[in-house]
Amino acid sequence: MPHIQITMLEGRTPEQKRKVAERITELMIEEIGTTREAVTVAFVEVSPASFARAGVLILDRQKT
Amino acid sequence: MPHIQITMLEGRTPEQKRKVAERITELMIEEIGTTREAVTVAFVEVSPASFARAGVLILDRQKT
Amino acid sequence: MPHIQITMLEGRTPEQKRKVAERITELMIEEIGTTREAVTVAFVEVSPASFARAGVLILDRQKT
Amino acid sequence: MPHIQITMLEGRTPEQKRKVAERITELMIEEIGTTREAVTVAFVEVSPASFARAGVLILDRQKT
Amino acid sequence: MPHIQITMLEGRTPEQKRKVAERITELMIEEIGTTREAVTVAFVEVSPASFARAGVLILDRQKT
Amino acid sequence: MPHIQITMLEGRTPEQKRKVAERITELMIEEIGTTREAVTVAFVEVSPASFARAGVLILDRQKT
Repeated sequence: MPHIQITMLEGRTPEQKRKVAERITELMIEEIGTTREAVTVAFVEVSPASFARAGVLILDRQKT
Repeated sequence: MPHIQITMLEGRTPEQKRKVAERITELMIEEIGTTREAVTVAFVEVSPASFARAGVLILDRQKT
Repeated sequence: MPHIQITMLEGRTPEQKRKVAERITELMIEEIGTTREAVTVAFVEVSPASFARAGVLILDRQKT
Repeated sequence: MPHIQITMLEGRTPEQKRKVAERITELMIEEIGTTREAVTVAFVEVSPASFARAGVLILDRQKT
Repeated sequence: MPHIQITMLEGRTPEQKRKVAERITELMIEEIGTTREAVTVAFVEVSPASFARAGVLILDRQKT
Repeated sequence: MPHIQITMLEGRTPEQKRKVAERITELMIEEIGTTREAVTVAFVEVSPASFARAGVLILDRQKT
């Protein structure tokens, strides 16, 4: 019953998210021994003004 | 001080969320013994391209 | 496919969590129109030194 | 490696989020002894219909 | 800057988590185009009394 | 009504968490214009085997 929340920058295509969800589900089955049905994945997508690393918003990092 | 994060598909009405927030708050008071003021509920709503179960996006599940 | 994360103070019994999980699942089915199988609930339990409201740890609130 | 998720009402400006991200990163370095690079901050912003306290949506609280 | 939170049942070995973290990081780089340094993974591990699917705690599911 | 979840390595003292909770609450009031009562902070603490950056567990990073 793993639930995986992926917080990332908005703008990825459905195809990209489809691949990520498929591959994470596969690897959880292989490495953790869970069943396929039990794996849920949610993408929480935020804007460049809503994510920071090292104290700097992505918005500002992209300007430089 | 329970905080409840509900990650779900977008598209529910304010009335639906109102009922969910009311009922979860009531049951937390009854079962857990917390005070009403201490209960917070956040709905994190994602698109059908951003939620997967069993490795399949809701987007793709709806097509079949 | 709602996933519900409940962050709360540690120390609740399995019976309390059983009741909360049952009741939240029921109300999500009734209010949101999801299927039973799709609802997952996780309790993330933290110590009194790891939860604060209004800037005060529960640990310190209990002392007064 | 602290990751800080801030769930809050939508509508804050980039400047407000910039200041919050900067100040949280600084205080984590000072109080917790982490490195600047290791701190990530994500703002998960929800509408007034998607946040409740004491069983009442912000949407309804603002009406009164 | 994706942050991945994996909520799962406790009891997995460091070796299992090492493999999961490595493989998720690799696939995020390949599918999403992020840098290795930007990917963080946190395992939030809960007891069988603290995870439910379809309204039933894992604790109770294991009894049957 | 901001809720702040801080996912970090276990082992910090109550005094460290007290200071972090106080300072985050203050800065949220100053920068975001929320009320003190509305701010909640939860520390979700994980072991060195349960947090990775750049694909490497903290556990393994500390060995080198």
